[in-house]
Amino acid sequence: MAEALIFLMPIKEQHRMKKSNTFLQGHLLIAVLLVVQTFYGFTHINNPTQKNPQSKEIIIENDAVKVSVNDVTGCFTVVGKESGQVWSSDPWKNAAGLLTLANDKGLKQTVNLSKSKSVKVVRKDENTISITFSEPVLENGSVASGVSIATELRLDTTTPKLEVQILKQESGSFKLSDLRYPARQFGLKTDKDIGAGVIPQKQGVICPSYIFPMNRGRFCKWDDATYNNKCVGTLSLFNNGSGLTMPWWGTHNIKSAVMGIIDEASRPDLFYNINNNGQYLFSEERKMSTYQRTLFLDPVWKLDGTDTKQQITYHFIPGGDYVDMAKEYKKEAIKRGHFVTLKEKLARNPNVDKLPGSIYFVVYGGYPHYVNMPGMAFTFDDLKGIIQTIHDDLKVYNAFIHAWGTVSNFVPHNFPISEELGGPEKLKAAVDLAKSYGYLYSSYHAYSPMLENDPDFTEDQMGRDAAGKLKATGSRWASVDPKLQKGLAKKNLENEISHLGLEADISDITFAAYREDGKAGRIELAKYIDSLNLVNGTEHGQEQWIPYFDMFEGMTYLENRPLGQLSHHAPLFNLIYHEAIANFVKIQDPDNEVTENGDFRIKALRSMLFGRGMTIFFAPYEFEGMAPMIEMARDLVSPVHKETFYAELDSHEYLSTDFKVQRSRFSSGTEVIANLGPVAQQVESGISIPGYGYRITTKDGTLKTGHFTVGLQMD
Amino acid sequence: MAEALIFLMPIKEQHRMKKSNTFLQGHLLIAVLLVVQTFYGFTHINNPTQKNPQSKEIIIENDAVKVSVNDVTGCFTVVGKESGQVWSSDPWKNAAGLLTLANDKGLKQTVNLSKSKSVKVVRKDENTISITFSEPVLENGSVASGVSIATELRLDTTTPKLEVQILKQESGSFKLSDLRYPARQFGLKTDKDIGAGVIPQKQGVICPSYIFPMNRGRFCKWDDATYNNKCVGTLSLFNNGSGLTMPWWGTHNIKSAVMGIIDEASRPDLFYNINNNGQYLFSEERKMSTYQRTLFLDPVWKLDGTDTKQQITYHFIPGGDYVDMAKEYKKEAIKRGHFVTLKEKLARNPNVDKLPGSIYFVVYGGYPHYVNMPGMAFTFDDLKGIIQTIHDDLKVYNAFIHAWGTVSNFVPHNFPISEELGGPEKLKAAVDLAKSYGYLYSSYHAYSPMLENDPDFTEDQMGRDAAGKLKATGSRWASVDPKLQKGLAKKNLENEISHLGLEADISDITFAAYREDGKAGRIELAKYIDSLNLVNGTEHGQEQWIPYFDMFEGMTYLENRPLGQLSHHAPLFNLIYHEAIANFVKIQDPDNEVTENGDFRIKALRSMLFGRGMTIFFAPYEFEGMAPMIEMARDLVSPVHKETFYAELDSHEYLSTDFKVQRSRFSSGTEVIANLGPVAQQVESGISIPGYGYRITTKDGTLKTGHFTVGLQMD
Repeated sequence: MAEALIFLMPIKEQHRMKKSNTFLQGHLLIAVLLVVQTFYGFTHINNPTQKNPQSKEIIIENDAVKVSVNDVTGCFTVVGKESGQVWSSDPWKNAAGLLTLANDKGLKQTVNLSKSKSVKVVRKDENTISITFSEPVLENGSVASGVSIATELRLDTTTPKLEVQILKQESGSFKLSDLRYPARQFGLKTDKDIGAGVIPQKQGVICPSYIFPMNRGRFCKWDDATYNNKCVGTLSLFNNGSGLTMPWWGTHNIKSAVMGIIDEASRPDLFYNINNNGQYLFSEERKMSTYQRTLFLDPVWKLDGTDTKQQITYHFIPGGDYVDMAKEYKKEAIKRGHFVTLKEKLARNPNVDKLPGSIYFVVYGGYPHYVNMPGMAFTFDDLKGIIQTIHDDLKVYNAFIHAWGTVSNFVPHNFPISEELGGPEKLKAAVDLAKSYGYLYSSYHAYSPMLENDPDFTEDQMGRDAAGKLKATGSRWASVDPKLQKGLAKKNLENEISHLGLEADISDITFAAYREDGKAGRIELAKYIDSLNLVNGTEHGQEQWIPYFDMFEGMTYLENRPLGQLSHHAPLFNLIYHEAIANFVKIQDPDNEVTENGDFRIKALRSMLFGRGMTIFFAPYEFEGMAPMIEMARDLVSPVHKETFYAELDSHEYLSTDFKVQRSRFSSGTEVIANLGPVAQQVESGISIPGYGYRITTKDGTLKTGHFTVGLQMD
Repeated sequence: MAEALIFLMPIKEQHRMKKSNTFLQGHLLIAVLLVVQTFYGFTHINNPTQKNPQSKEIIIENDAVKVSVNDVTGCFTVVGKESGQVWSSDPWKNAAGLLTLANDKGLKQTVNLSKSKSVKVVRKDENTISITFSEPVLENGSVASGVSIATELRLDTTTPKLEVQILKQESGSFKLSDLRYPARQFGLKTDKDIGAGVIPQKQGVICPSYIFPMNRGRFCKWDDATYNNKCVGTLSLFNNGSGLTMPWWGTHNIKSAVMGIIDEASRPDLFYNINNNGQYLFSEERKMSTYQRTLFLDPVWKLDGTDTKQQITYHFIPGGDYVDMAKEYKKEAIKRGHFVTLKEKLARNPNVDKLPGSIYFVVYGGYPHYVNMPGMAFTFDDLKGIIQTIHDDLKVYNAFIHAWGTVSNFVPHNFPISEELGGPEKLKAAVDLAKSYGYLYSSYHAYSPMLENDPDFTEDQMGRDAAGKLKATGSRWASVDPKLQKGLAKKNLENEISHLGLEADISDITFAAYREDGKAGRIELAKYIDSLNLVNGTEHGQEQWIPYFDMFEGMTYLENRPLGQLSHHAPLFNLIYHEAIANFVKIQDPDNEVTENGDFRIKALRSMLFGRGMTIFFAPYEFEGMAPMIEMARDLVSPVHKETFYAELDSHEYLSTDFKVQRSRFSSGTEVIANLGPVAQQVESGISIPGYGYRITTKDGTLKTGHFTVGLQMD
């Protein structure tokens, strides 16, 4: 039978097979079975060196799209009937999928599934095609016997929706590690497709697939980045760093958009290749790439044997873009139960109405890093003075005051209120003053950290694995076992609320990510905090925590995040969740700090476009220096925040070719146009938006225009 | 004999030895020889599990310092006699050095040299101690037989100067890869030592060894970074990314400074550990570190067999800091021939006098990335218009105009002048206008890139290794074989100079790094360009190129460079080289762009403190938006640049505890105080420097004060 197999193959391939003959003999039975199977399906014995002239296309279609699967490679093509868009498979290597596996010696390699010895494509019914890739060919030409991946493509009967599922994985004597499937599918040809990759990294980014005007060194960085490792990598779901905040992504050109939504249970990574030419596949051999630059986004399924539904559902949207994708996902988000509106939250707690138009003031006293830290700590009298200045001198009438460093233990022990700083009554006086102004107030709370510099540091409450080893030796902020966190909260929070008369709470860190490990404990903590019916906030946030909270210090683009040089900020999260959760930026990138995300001017303008409130984060010694920014936030951003707070962010557009001039429309009727660049640019009807300028149409139709200035006052 | 060896060892060690008995027997002869040697030197058979009560200190000293070497561990301590400072060895593991080696199976590990079977410390003469570490102990308890490292400490007879040299390396059957030596020496105890690590990364940074007031999220980032991998890593010498621009580094506290200067020939990396507690040594075992936080800077010697003098010379400076270190290195830089002053360059070419006070305008037309790129390319008439506007409307009277994108070939072929943009005569008209204003002008030139998107891309001129493989598949900008670059320059440059009547030249890229490989070709190119006697500039620059050039687009802090969150910018390079080379920032971080290095205000203030000129980099479509910044640069920075241009940067100080208020003094008599933060802070004599403010005393004693403002113009 091994001979028969060889007989069907070209010379070059025979040579390889002979070399691995010993390996083959041990797997003879499986080989026999596979060849027998050939005669009863669309299985092909593959010839990887030339195009098989006998390949057939297996087709499923509905009124909107047609899906054809090549029965030799298992690759598929989707044609949008309305748009005429042809979404092809891997343009580089014609690989349906890329499987990474290790042999019994632990040696890893990635194989092209389309070059498997057997690819079986079966049309199971009118809307379903199953594809089975068996016996992939390894680098040395031998066959990974016993390895098989079965997938299924299911087209919705009426809508342009295609489910792609990994149904089965068999590993033989190998260890499967991950699978990119579909691979390099739905790609955009750089500079030929005028479109973008759409990625919900934090608040969201789009990565254009073409060259556009850039300035001030940005083009140099952009173009160089597409030729180096900055444009290739993976992002994971629901983490606190630079991963994805929502389980979808997509590509679009002028004709059509395609977005994939991940099934809730599974957690594939996203592999991205943004306008790169695949040089990384050639560099080891020290050759130059022969491929064209392209932009593609692949799911990477972990084949670790956990039993989750590994499915991505592609939606095709004729003429669509990132806004349409977000709105498509919004329907799914509602189905999944992530969506509770701020109006609903207001109905339960009238204090939610103190958030609209608020500036979020975060007063940093060195804590949670250090307690009563010299040079940064404030007294409660200082705090009261700051609150009074904000109201009386700076004339801010909507505020959320968040004080870091009010207790005399290190986190996660958020008590007792520090006597050194003035004691509970002094703090109460500050809180009372804040409340008298209609401000919200919370002290800093966190239940997950254990800091090495805490004199009472102990490993007792840290999470441990089954073997008793510490789980988080590298992460001081996520050390405490989640199942203990609710207990830590209960120990103090209700006392504090009752003593200070609190109406709001900020619980840091725990909800910054959404991890499977420890999820139950974190949900218990969220439910407990929610049960107190305060105005609740948390750091960063993920969509799963929206039902429990009213505001996120969240969705902040970290400095030097992946794709930073290749993308534009896009309010993907707020296009979906704006009316469900208030958003302020995270303290690592506050609006009053100059970072690669911009200076105050750029951040203020972007806040209005994205429907965000403003965050002013300061240590007491610099408070006076914040005044000009606080006043500008009060005059410009707060009124927009106030009138759009409960509204949907209906749309967002880039109006200039350099992406600097943008427009957002809210369901309140509010429209914001802002120019994030230094030069005046014209929008439609010849209207010119000055550099760092804005043009706001309020819900009652009033037009507000203006711009930021930077001046030099020479005495 | 093996039995005798075991007899001297404690029980625990005997167990280990027995397990590796077979290994030992093959090396019996060497073991015999080593034990015999014991009786004739200070060699000790080490007991790594307890302190040897019989250890002795071998001492050399002069009037300034005393150096003691422990004869058991080979670790040394230096005491400064004037300062009383005790510079100890490794506080964590008492390791004199850390040797990384691989066995014949390629398995790598790092061993503590102080736990070698034999450590021989010999006082060779009054000022010299030699230390030989032989037979280091591997992780499994066996001995790396035949491996030996010999070092020498040589104290200057009169000055506080200690030479430390790796004299000999023997590898036995192992492959030595690198050696950190001395390891964790001259460290600062975090928060106990009030001092800093001083690192000439680009223009230079200092990393404080203690907590100081920080604001706006910076403290959170700073403290977290010291507990994660952002504070540990290596930097290499003379590269174009984030490495070191000068071969020295050091630490200081209040009592004393110690700096190490690398011998010219060798190229160790710098291993840095900034205030970290060594958690990375425990995480694999999932334990918490038991070490204290510390700051140390180690040389990492490459033991690849190349025959260079592997020496670092430590200078001890009582009461010294980063300024004293820079001035100490300046003496060495002059000795090494890197130092040619701008006054000397002026004597040779009077046009050098057009640089003082100049704004460096870089006009970007999409080139060198793309030729005649739509949306970014300018015509030569546009260019002329821009030059005229700069002069007539913006009243800038000192300028260097650098135009990118004037030719119709891709780099490295800098010809012919583009007909599409207007042809040679139109470009000459623009250049003539610039010259009539007293401006310098250069078109963009580069001789090292080969771009994949060039329709005429060829591998023909790319560098290849001995095996014929391409050297730079990952770096499009450094592709051309250096030995061909002078030929590429000669092909065009003289023609262009003669046609356009050029007085200046910018040659990009080639001189951004100083690499050994291809050095000869690059020196040829530098000499050729220098021979044309123009005002010469190049990207980034390294100290070795100073004799050939008048200005660097250089020393720019890249965004997200290593140590970015843990350091402050310090003008180390300019404290040494200010009067030898003019400095403007690199186009990846121009003064008109908001990046993590600051916005225009911060960059303008820092330019004055550091003695830099300002760079305005723009694509033509944004030129109008540059106007306010150009005017502020003209009024504030240019006059300071003009009067300090030929002067030495005598000193630099941080005047506020948060490092935001700084003062520089130039040998011209000019003094600049600037506040890079938002809040007013007092300096001595009760003088207050406003947020983003300055206080300049010109060389004639005139006082200039003022500050930047950001305003909101609401129409």
